[in-house]
Order: sequence, then C-alpha cells, then structure tokens
Amino acid sequence: MGKLLDKKVNPKHILGMHDLSRPDILSILALAKKFKNTPKAPTQAFSHKTVVNLFFEPSTRTRSSFEIATKRLGASSINITSSSSSTIKGETLIDTAKNLEAMNPDVIIIRHFSSGAPYVLSQVLKTPIINAGDGFHEHPTQALLDMMTIEEAKGKISGLTVLIVGDIAHSRVARSNIYGLQKMGAKIIVCGPPTLIPPDIQKLHVGVSHSLKEVVSKADVIMMLRIQEERQDRIQFPSKREYIKYFGLTLDTLKQAKKDVIIMHPGPLNRGVEIASEVADGPYSVILNQVTNGVVVRMALLSMLMKAGKIE
Amino acid sequence: MGKLLDKKVNPKHILGMHDLSRPDILSILALAKKFKNTPKAPTQAFSHKTVVNLFFEPSTRTRSSFEIATKRLGASSINITSSSSSTIKGETLIDTAKNLEAMNPDVIIIRHFSSGAPYVLSQVLKTPIINAGDGFHEHPTQALLDMMTIEEAKGKISGLTVLIVGDIAHSRVARSNIYGLQKMGAKIIVCGPPTLIPPDIQKLHVGVSHSLKEVVSKADVIMMLRIQEERQDRIQFPSKREYIKYFGLTLDTLKQAKKDVIIMHPGPLNRGVEIASEVADGPYSVILNQVTNGVVVRMALLSMLMKAGKIE
Amino acid sequence: MGKLLDKKVNPKHILGMHDLSRPDILSILALAKKFKNTPKAPTQAFSHKTVVNLFFEPSTRTRSSFEIATKRLGASSINITSSSSSTIKGETLIDTAKNLEAMNPDVIIIRHFSSGAPYVLSQVLKTPIINAGDGFHEHPTQALLDMMTIEEAKGKISGLTVLIVGDIAHSRVARSNIYGLQKMGAKIIVCGPPTLIPPDIQKLHVGVSHSLKEVVSKADVIMMLRIQEERQDRIQFPSKREYIKYFGLTLDTLKQAKKDVIIMHPGPLNRGVEIASEVADGPYSVILNQVTNGVVVRMALLSMLMKAGKIE
Repeated sequence: MGKLLDKKVNPKHILGMHDLSRPDILSILALAKKFKNTPKAPTQAFSHKTVVNLFFEPSTRTRSSFEIATKRLGASSINITSSSSSTIKGETLIDTAKNLEAMNPDVIIIRHFSSGAPYVLSQVLKTPIINAGDGFHEHPTQALLDMMTIEEAKGKISGLTVLIVGDIAHSRVARSNIYGLQKMGAKIIVCGPPTLIPPDIQKLHVGVSHSLKEVVSKADVIMMLRIQEERQDRIQFPSKREYIKYFGLTLDTLKQAKKDVIIMHPGPLNRGVEIASEVADGPYSVILNQVTNGVVVRMALLSMLMKAGKIE
Repeated sequence: MGKLLDKKVNPKHILGMHDLSRPDILSILALAKKFKNTPKAPTQAFSHKTVVNLFFEPSTRTRSSFEIATKRLGASSINITSSSSSTIKGETLIDTAKNLEAMNPDVIIIRHFSSGAPYVLSQVLKTPIINAGDGFHEHPTQALLDMMTIEEAKGKISGLTVLIVGDIAHSRVARSNIYGLQKMGAKIIVCGPPTLIPPDIQKLHVGVSHSLKEVVSKADVIMMLRIQEERQDRIQFPSKREYIKYFGLTLDTLKQAKKDVIIMHPGPLNRGVEIASEVADGPYSVILNQVTNGVVVRMALLSMLMKAGKIE
Repeated sequence: MGKLLDKKVNPKHILGMHDLSRPDILSILALAKKFKNTPKAPTQAFSHKTVVNLFFEPSTRTRSSFEIATKRLGASSINITSSSSSTIKGETLIDTAKNLEAMNPDVIIIRHFSSGAPYVLSQVLKTPIINAGDGFHEHPTQALLDMMTIEEAKGKISGLTVLIVGDIAHSRVARSNIYGLQKMGAKIIVCGPPTLIPPDIQKLHVGVSHSLKEVVSKADVIMMLRIQEERQDRIQFPSKREYIKYFGLTLDTLKQAKKDVIIMHPGPLNRGVEIASEVADGPYSVILNQVTNGVVVRMALLSMLMKAGKIE
C-alpha cells in the first residue's frame, strides 16, 4: 500500500484516471477489497472528519454511494446541491469552494456540469478533492468500481478485451474507463453510431466499431452506456428504434458472445433501450455488483485522503 | 418481546397494520414505551447501521420523525427524495430499490404515491422495509403511534369506541387505524360526507355516520383527519363552509362528547377547517403526544428490524 | 465563563444582538476561541443531541456552517427546508415548530423571511432557539463571527471605527453588527445611497455618510454588504454602474484607507460590484477568516445551549 505515496503521484486528489498510475490503481483496489471483506467494525478513526458533497448536477446514486461510504467510515457528510442554494448563484465556483474550505472539511467531493471544474479547484484549494463526474470529461470513481468488478469476476484485467457500447462522445464513464483499463493492460473497443464516437478517438488507441453484432464475440466484458433520453439535444441518431436495433444488447445479440462474458452498466438502466431486461437481470450481468463495489471503492478513496498521507 | 419472532408473522418488514398480529402490535408498543421511559443513553449497538429514507412524496414530519428516531438510535440516515433525483426518472422503482439494496443499507423506509409500492419491494428485496405511507392504502407507523397515544391516555384500547372523522375514502391513516384498532379490540365508527366514505366500507365491520353531531357522544377517542385542500381534485363536498358546519370539530360540538374524550389529529392541522383552534389546543387534545410517540414507535420498529431477529 | 448564567440574560435562546449583554458576548467569543485553538478531539458529550435546521429561506453557507458545527460537536443535524415540505404549506409556523419540539430536539435553528419569527417561537417553545437570520431584522451569529474576526485581527473591538457599506436598510447583518459592536465599544459609521439608509438610523447613534471616499480614511474595519442583485424589487439606486462608482470598494479607494485596515464581507461576494476582486483577495481581506470563525462561534453557541446551563 506504500506505492501511492512512494511515487507521489497526486496522492492528494482523485481527479481522473488519466492522472492515476497503475500502482495507484492497484493500491486503491486492494484497499477497497479489504473493506469489502471486513465486516463492519466500529471505529473512531474518522469520527470527527467531515466530507462535503458539492453537487452541481442532480445525482442520486453517486451521491448516496459517497454518503453511505462516508458514514460507514464513521465520518460526517454535508450535502450541498446547486438547487438547494440560491446564494451559490452569482458566486464563482472558486469562491464557493474557498468558502467551504474555510470551514475546514476533510474532503470535498465535487460533481460539476463543466469538464475540468475539479481540476480548477485542485489548483486553488488545499483540501483533498474527489471528482464525482465533470461534464463529458471523467468519472474516476465509476471507472475504479468498474475495474474492481471486472477483476472480481474475471480474476484479472490485463489481457481482457472490454467493449464499451453507446454514446462514447459524451460519456465520462467511457473516458475514465478507457484511461484506467488501458493502464491495467486491457484492450478497449468502443462501439456506437458514428455521430456518437469522437472523431479523435484514435488518439486513445482503442478499436472502433459501428456494429455491436460485429464485435460482440470479441468481448470479455461488455460495458453498456446509458442513452440519455432526457437530454434531447444530445440525440444524434435517427430514432430510438434504430438505436435499439443496432446497439441495444439483447439475448439474441448475446448468443454470439463468449460463454464467460460479463455485462456491465453504470445505471440507471433504460430497460428495453440500450439493454434488454433479460440481459440486465440475466446470469452474465454484474450490474448490482458494480453498485456494491462503488461503496467500498469510495470508502477506500475517502480513507486514503482523510488519512492525509498516513496510508497503511 | 419474544412473541413477534415466535409467531414468525412477517418479522422482516412493516408493510401495513393488516399484516401485523395482535402480539406483533403488543411487542412494538412495549418496546416503544421502553424507549420513551429510558433517558437517552449512549449506545454503540447501531453505530454502523444505515437507514435509507426513500420518499417519493414530499413529507416533513414523517421523514423528520424517522430521521430523528434513526439518529437517536445512533444509526445513520440517508435521504433520497424523488425531487432530488433526476436519475430516478426513467428508472423503474424496482431498479432504484435494488440499486439501493446493493449498497447494503440495513433498513429502507419508503413513502410512495402508489398503493402497494412497499409490498412490491418486499417481494424483490431482502432488506427490511418500512411503509411510511403508500397512496390511499396504509400508513402503519402512524397507526402504531396513534395506538400508543390512546393506550397512554386511556390505559387500554380494548372496548373503546374510536370515531374517525373526515375523508375516509382517501385516508391511509384511517385504513391503518381501522385494521390496527380492531385487532386490539376497539370499535370503530367512521364519519364523513357520503362522497368521502368508500362504498365497501361495510366489509371492514365499522359503524358509519354522516353527521358528527349524531355520533360524537359515543366516542372515547375522536380522530380527526386532515382535509387535503391542496389536492383540489379530491374535493368531493359542496363547499368548505358546509364541510366545517357538519364535520369540523368545534368547542360547541365537543359539549356533547364524553367528559374524558381525547382528540387526535395526524397533522398538519387546518385550523378552523376540520378542527377549531380551541379544540386543537384544548385539554382533550393529545395531538403533540402523538408526535412525541411517533419518534419512539419508529425507534422501536427500526431497532427490531436492525437487530434482524435478535429482539431482546 | 460563568457570567452568562450569573446574569441570567436570556441564556436559553440566541435571538439577536439586541438582547445579548456585553458579558454574554465575551463569554461566547471566549468559548469560540477555545474551540478554535483545540484540535478536534473525540467527545461523546453531545452524541445523542439533535439539532434541527429549520430554514424557510434558501441558504448554503449559514446552513452548512451550522451543520458542520453540529457534527464537529458530535451531535446530529436534521435539515428541514420549506421547499422540501409541502406539508408545511397551510400549517402555521407555530404548529410546525411545536410539532418539531414534540420530537424533543435539543436546539432549533431558524431562518425565516419574516422579521421576528424566532422571537415568536421563543415565546411558545421550551426548546432553545438560534436565530439564523430573520427578514431585515437580525443575524446574530453573523455579527458574533464578525466580532471574533475583528478581535483576532485588531486585538480589540473597543475604540475601533467600523464602517458598514451598502444596503443598510435591508441588512440584518448591518443591524446585528451595529447592536453588537456598539456594546463592545466600537464606533459605527454606515455608508450608502440615501435610499438604502433607513430614515430613523439616527436612533442607533451611528455616523452616516453617502460617500465611501469621504469616510474610508476613518475606518479601522470596512464591512462591505452584499448587493442583492437577485432581488430586483429592492434595487433603489439609479444603476449598478453608478453604485460601483460611489460605493464599490476598489484598490483605488483603499489608497485613502488606514494602513492596517481590515476588509470584511458576509458573502457571497459580487466581485466587481460592491467589492473588487483585488480587494477581496488582497492582504487586508479577512473574508475567509470570517467563514472559519463562523463554525467555531456556532459550536460555542450550540454547546452552550445544549449544555442547558451547564456551561463550563
């Protein structure tokens, strides 16, 4: 567990998978595993620590997961949402954050609609920051829980082929997983309609496909992304029906998959759109394992940051 | 206290008074009384337990009561409201709940606008569920705190006549109290305009009256229901003025009541509508006792469910 | 620390600076200083105490500061906002508060848009009440944190000249500081356009100026108030540009100030309106110290009220 500190690779903040090294990731996953295997034991280690959830985008599951992780460590959560605050209006993000920092919290978790917002804060604050999703940029805790889930199911990450299907262009989940999984030795194929694959994706050294049926047989892991139906301005494919036909994961499509494939989804599910109910609830699905692992991955990150360098 | 477990009557969930047996109710009320009589004592028993409040309808008092009960037990509360979450949109209730369950909470408290929602969840989840109000169906914790308040004031429930006044048809409070109080040996009379009494009420073996003045003298307990003025679509009586005249509880109406009658109301009060201020604040009122008992009844239920069968 | 109780000056509630005596203020500031200088130490003293935040106006920073103070003391916070509750609608403030009191919280913190609301509650409740801002009336915890910040920076309050600049007429921060600082021996000058200075301000024995440049050289402390741009109905000056010209604090205006002047602002800042960024972030600014002191001042108040007379 000493690697993270020995290498001094940004041990203070968790901003993106781009910045974490392979040893960092191994350390985090090992600690998460430890939390998962340890029965909840009372501890006073973090009983006076305060974690602020600063959420500028609505979120139930990520915020709940961080809140449960915080409380399970015995620390306190403070929730601040942009909607709960009229005073945030007119105030700059940096002023809001400096204000919070002046109250001496131990960690600030930020979700923001603007790519890069957590990076800006990390430049001006001394408080450890965790990026809980920034615009179309990164969602590192999602990638870490995905990696933990893959390793749990497959025994390894290195050498696996991970197929990421959907709106790659606007997915911070895809981006963080690409960075993280490649560092761990996985091969990535992204799959989606041409309008939803970023033109410069080649720079990330991933395979590209515009037909799920063509590539499904190659995958050890299929990671389905959510189609954001509520953001109509993003819809860049002819019709939902056509999307389902070419990129929806059904039992029929799965027939061509490897026998030991695993199916992932960051949630919330659009059943019958990007994923058929039979697949989401079927034997290959590890979707709920992802959620469970989300709590322990976040416990690992929070405990590392709250120990402020005293990682055991 | 062993009765609940000996009989194995749905000890995992609190879904409705319909499902609880007389021994169940006695066990719960006894434990609530114990909490009420015990000064707040530090305990670590529940210090790593997590209780999720999953509220799909706005609620201040019920949610606060559960939250205070949870924290007084030393456990942690996580609040999830449908308004705080855009991600819940489009996701099925079952997926939302399974997701929460995957984070390993110890109890899920649900309030939902659809009758039966907590029952559906109890079929698919392993986590203990408490129904905090479902549509027009049941609100069992309200009925339990009402029963505790009646027993406290009258020394017994059996043999009492309880008069429930107002919109019986759309009241989960009425329904839960009818089920619960009858099991404890009380006689129930419901009273309201014909449009607000369900046609099949006879099946519940209750007395029916359409005139408060006619039946007020028979009551040992008068339970006034809130007229939901904000739900205009429900209003099924000619005018508020007429409602007040025939079904509002005033000092004048009370003259015909028994000398030791008690007045209850689940809150929030519409002063001057279903209940006159002088009555709400008068010597017969036990309205604030109901609120106080709400916290200890919920502490009893939460501690029973969190102990997972280890009821002392 | 015994003075507050010896004098029996309203030791139960913190309603306004108008009601606190000089010994009260000294006691509070001394305890706050003690909390500031003491490293966070685990304590079980308040582990079963419950503090309710009853906020009828949106607030991020004040609510967060109280919540952090509460949790740092080891007590529990319950947040109730008018927006989170449809049930509060139609219910009187007194009923809402009596209801909360029936759940036996240890302190109720109230922010309300109506001047005097906390006073009304203190008449009908037994629970200790802290005013977190009521209408245009008082915001005593802000004044206390301001006083702590002044004393920290200047070593004293007595004899200082404090210049308060902006919308004096509608500022509860101004009013509480005038009451409090005068009791501690400071001289106050208020400065703003004639339309934003209350006509009866002379009764408060403060100096009045309509030109910042004229009085800036006299100030030991400059307290800038926020221009509430979001409340257009309040705007009572010709244009924002003109306001900035005459009442905005810029580096240029500061040239005429004392060399050891300190600059304060209750936040959130309108950079470039009432205060220039260079001033807010400059060496004279103690704005973030105010925020830090806000937490310990609130810890002091909460611990005093929760100890219910057992002030150490």
